[in-house]
Amino acid sequence: MLRRITFFKPYYCSGCCTRFKSTFSKDPVSNPDGSSLPDSEKAIHPFRVAVEEQGSIVKRLIKEATTSSEELDKAVIKLKNKKQLLEAKLQELSSLIPQVNKVKLDDLIKQRFYYDQSFSIYGGLYDFGPAGCAVKNHLLQDWRQFFVLTDGMLEVDCPVLTPEAPLRASGHVEKFTDYLISDSLTGESYRADHLIRQSLESLAKKKGKQSGEAKQALAGLGSLDGQGLQGLIDRFGITAPGTGNALTQPREFNLMFDTAAGADSRQQGGRHRLFLRPETAQGIFTNFRRLLDFNRGRLPMAVAQIGQSFRNEVQPRSGLLRLREFALAEIEHFYDPEDSRHPDFASVSELNLPLLSVEDQSAALTAPTWRQLGASVASGLVAHETLGYYLGRIFLFLTKRCGIDPRRLRFRQHPPCEMAHYAADCWDAECLLTDGCGRVDWIECVGCADRAAYDLSRHSEASGESLVAARTATGGTSRSFTPSVVEPSFGVGRLLSAILEHNYRQRPGRDEQRTCLSLPAWLAPYHCALLPMNGGSAEMRQLIRRLHRRLAVGENLAGLVDADSRGVSIGKRYARCDQLGVPFAVTVDYDSVAEVKAGALSELDSNLLSDWPADCRQPTVTLRERDSRQQVRVPIDRVPGLVKQLVEQRVTWSQVMDTEAVFQGQTGTKSNR
Amino acid sequence: MLRRITFFKPYYCSGCCTRFKSTFSKDPVSNPDGSSLPDSEKAIHPFRVAVEEQGSIVKRLIKEATTSSEELDKAVIKLKNKKQLLEAKLQELSSLIPQVNKVKLDDLIKQRFYYDQSFSIYGGLYDFGPAGCAVKNHLLQDWRQFFVLTDGMLEVDCPVLTPEAPLRASGHVEKFTDYLISDSLTGESYRADHLIRQSLESLAKKKGKQSGEAKQALAGLGSLDGQGLQGLIDRFGITAPGTGNALTQPREFNLMFDTAAGADSRQQGGRHRLFLRPETAQGIFTNFRRLLDFNRGRLPMAVAQIGQSFRNEVQPRSGLLRLREFALAEIEHFYDPEDSRHPDFASVSELNLPLLSVEDQSAALTAPTWRQLGASVASGLVAHETLGYYLGRIFLFLTKRCGIDPRRLRFRQHPPCEMAHYAADCWDAECLLTDGCGRVDWIECVGCADRAAYDLSRHSEASGESLVAARTATGGTSRSFTPSVVEPSFGVGRLLSAILEHNYRQRPGRDEQRTCLSLPAWLAPYHCALLPMNGGSAEMRQLIRRLHRRLAVGENLAGLVDADSRGVSIGKRYARCDQLGVPFAVTVDYDSVAEVKAGALSELDSNLLSDWPADCRQPTVTLRERDSRQQVRVPIDRVPGLVKQLVEQRVTWSQVMDTEAVFQGQTGTKSNR
Repeated sequence: MLRRITFFKPYYCSGCCTRFKSTFSKDPVSNPDGSSLPDSEKAIHPFRVAVEEQGSIVKRLIKEATTSSEELDKAVIKLKNKKQLLEAKLQELSSLIPQVNKVKLDDLIKQRFYYDQSFSIYGGLYDFGPAGCAVKNHLLQDWRQFFVLTDGMLEVDCPVLTPEAPLRASGHVEKFTDYLISDSLTGESYRADHLIRQSLESLAKKKGKQSGEAKQALAGLGSLDGQGLQGLIDRFGITAPGTGNALTQPREFNLMFDTAAGADSRQQGGRHRLFLRPETAQGIFTNFRRLLDFNRGRLPMAVAQIGQSFRNEVQPRSGLLRLREFALAEIEHFYDPEDSRHPDFASVSELNLPLLSVEDQSAALTAPTWRQLGASVASGLVAHETLGYYLGRIFLFLTKRCGIDPRRLRFRQHPPCEMAHYAADCWDAECLLTDGCGRVDWIECVGCADRAAYDLSRHSEASGESLVAARTATGGTSRSFTPSVVEPSFGVGRLLSAILEHNYRQRPGRDEQRTCLSLPAWLAPYHCALLPMNGGSAEMRQLIRRLHRRLAVGENLAGLVDADSRGVSIGKRYARCDQLGVPFAVTVDYDSVAEVKAGALSELDSNLLSDWPADCRQPTVTLRERDSRQQVRVPIDRVPGLVKQLVEQRVTWSQVMDTEAVFQGQTGTKSNR
Repeated sequence: MLRRITFFKPYYCSGCCTRFKSTFSKDPVSNPDGSSLPDSEKAIHPFRVAVEEQGSIVKRLIKEATTSSEELDKAVIKLKNKKQLLEAKLQELSSLIPQVNKVKLDDLIKQRFYYDQSFSIYGGLYDFGPAGCAVKNHLLQDWRQFFVLTDGMLEVDCPVLTPEAPLRASGHVEKFTDYLISDSLTGESYRADHLIRQSLESLAKKKGKQSGEAKQALAGLGSLDGQGLQGLIDRFGITAPGTGNALTQPREFNLMFDTAAGADSRQQGGRHRLFLRPETAQGIFTNFRRLLDFNRGRLPMAVAQIGQSFRNEVQPRSGLLRLREFALAEIEHFYDPEDSRHPDFASVSELNLPLLSVEDQSAALTAPTWRQLGASVASGLVAHETLGYYLGRIFLFLTKRCGIDPRRLRFRQHPPCEMAHYAADCWDAECLLTDGCGRVDWIECVGCADRAAYDLSRHSEASGESLVAARTATGGTSRSFTPSVVEPSFGVGRLLSAILEHNYRQRPGRDEQRTCLSLPAWLAPYHCALLPMNGGSAEMRQLIRRLHRRLAVGENLAGLVDADSRGVSIGKRYARCDQLGVPFAVTVDYDSVAEVKAGALSELDSNLLSDWPADCRQPTVTLRERDSRQQVRVPIDRVPGLVKQLVEQRVTWSQVMDTEAVFQGQTGTKSNR
């Protein structure tokens, strides 16, 4: 957990990576459900197979004593050619990844109040407006069902305020630091690694002797301590940006916010120093004993926590990518280190995942290779079944539940020198995201690490409490051990950013100016918009009220009433719904109210949840789907149940189009439906 | 919002209360749905009517010029007698309110890990374990549906970290304080009002001249400033507890935690001082402009926020009642001060609520009177419809959704001198709760105040931003005004405490030692327990796995598998479920697995969500209900849907008993079912 969620910069490992054995499924053109694998991967697959096969030939030739050097040279040249073809194809396909107009997207996010900066003068703090807050709630609710309920995890809720002792045990008090350097005259402070990286990157682009040196230095930058950083500053003559002043020595800066509890220093024990937790995981470790008791002593045991975390970032980024306060959703899966099997691994083993191994990275690749999970665990590329299970579940959650584009997703393995010494294996789920300048970068949204027994051992040492589990072997002998832990950790704000960007669309053709968020229906801030035609007569408003109440109370769905009285056209109101990502919209028009028997409404109004009277014909309304912009006409009381089924994917929109009356326009305005 | 959630001490107002006009429904023996009004209220109703009628007679006699003094005296004596009868009846009935064995309840809460103290040496911080966290999640989910979705509120999510400016505007920086005093020798600090109250209460119990004076002083204690408090210390010679040392002067102590952002003092602008928000409401006011835009400029507009809040309590209490970190769920309902009607008031106006008016309090009453909401708004007792609407909704939420006992609930009105000067009216929903020593007290769980235009005006002044809304009158003239606000504010931890206590039961008769939490099914931490008989064979475990997955994925319900392998009997496991409040439990026994065709299970195991094959008889399992302890026998795949319907109250348990096979025991162990 000490590892901070940082921006990924391609890391060129210089030889530490010896574990990799290439294995990907020979036929990864479809996932078991046939849907997750992007078309681009199908196009590239023959090229990958060709490289893999030629690689095997070369390996065989090397091993065989009878191989002539001529034969070997030929085979190696062939391998190089095949690799070039693969690279070219990868290059070609990467240009097909959707380009996002981030300026327009950011406008939409601000204008529709998904989120916006809090208290404008301060950085690193954001307010979620009604749209963003609702998507976040729906996302967390879905996360709970997908992970906590489905796998029977325990969930805990611990305070933000944390005393020093557990954070000292976890290493945060000593080591949760960045190196800072300051302009020696103005005092302006910078993160040392950021400043040095910028300088080296611009040097690397220039011609000359320093270019190569700078590239090499960049490769090792991630693992340097203060002395190492100072060495680079001296060697490349790096100065403060803007001023050109000399820089101070790098110094460590702890990223935790602190405060104090109690009345004053004279109180018994003085004021207690408290920290704002930098992650939620520690609350799980400090409760391990109680949780294992709750779980009747059984392992494996998975414990989840969702909550706010705090880091005093020196240079917060704009948007949700690096905040001083952010939500995390974390899982600690405790297991017997001598038994890393997972009972449900079979449910994910046939999935193909976009993996970027350590070896891929040392070959300077950035695009992932789709590899089968079962084969990857069998070959040792992914450390074991339990870690593999979580990679598979994370992949399914991101692509099936969050609408993350699989072409813009990769699981990047940490090279040993990027991992903590105790960690067994670590993969980050990274999404391709665009920054304000249109530059795309791979951003870590979910981390998934095997942290071995490190955390429990540390807490046990510090507290003197025994944090072990016991297991009775078949012989009847009980064995006691410190459990290992696999930790999937979701950055909720980052994931939300990725969801918005990957589901952002501009309408094709002449409607290009019209933007839309094609969010999965269950994540949308509102499930159904309710629009009275024009200003809306009293009768229309009554029907809207009825629909709204029946959606909320009967189906637990969020309805958005947009009864604009300032003459905003229905087309513009649909456009607003599209930008809010609302998947369905109901319009109540003049035909609807014309169908209602006089007086029937006021009777119904007294109980909005009562059935429509049998002796009174039900009015019909139009139901519009966001992505296709198709409409059907249905009786009003059918709407809530139908929307519920659509949101829960029990029926598809095309089924609705097949069974309901397709709507082309009001009788009063256009030709009959 | 400046008002802190504090413990209620009966407040005896000395004459400021002139607004009250008594009105309660002449027939408040049932609520419109016939269920919410406690039996005790029915018993007491004739006595109330008698007092009210005699009171009217006295008033009439006073007004009439022809009344003789003899006549008047007789009537007044009669009134006094009727009041005594009412008091006696109230006394008699209050003894019927369930007594809670708080020691046993606290044991249950700790043992079943509802919650427990975090980091034992520090006060005021609690961890919610799996049971408490799940109940809290279900409660908040239900709160969102009941308030946010049903009434189409906007919800926002703002950071905990808050800069000084908005908190200065709101008055928190200057006035969100307690008075502290310290032992002049040891330095130990105390809340001045608490310490003085304790001293005065013990004086008041003693005989002698000071007793009366102490009682009088107690009545005015709540509104004193530092000088006033010092006056009492001098007058009654109050000294430090334990030591008897002199006390320091009372000094103001701000209750907000603070911290600082940024790298160091030399950074541009220096380190920014930040506070941990003491309530969530300010984030709503600072976003008012954006929210009104989102709402298309329309009022009324209600905005909700749920989140952690922080107060540096000098003397935190044990349990969840006064914490340093706690969750609030707050609503700000903005409305035009010239139009305080509420469109849905009719839906609550016929409810009877247990109100304790200012006049009741000045008559030293502590038990509430059940008064009709519509009549109470009409008489002016409750300031207006919008405030009345929220009182009604809060009442329904507490009694219908949270299982709060209406006999242990009252809405207490704030006397003018307890309210801020700008507030129009304020009522606290208070629950009768027991402390660790068995003492019961009325504890505020929800506040509901009309704060007029105070907050928006202050923020507008401080920021220079115009925070007004506009409304077009029928004449076409647009009028601009600062909206008023009604603020319902829920203390989530306190409400959770009340829910646990009010739903705590000890089994009757010889099972008295068996305790149970009769939580509403939708709030329970787990909706259904899954218990294999004895250790559980492989087949039983497979059936349990199938049930668990179908509950979670198919129905979004939380299942608790208790597959104890240490020989814990089924009876003891039921007892544990009862203590966890799990409303339903399924047992898979030998009969269940005997019914399964050999080999069928492994086929089904590969897809737990697929239908049971038509050519293979479905095994049956027992389904037990917590409160009645009755059991039925049903086919396994019927269970998830049936539990869903029970949890959502679409069927009742007695309907299930009527339609399903009642279970008396396994064929192998007892006589046939």
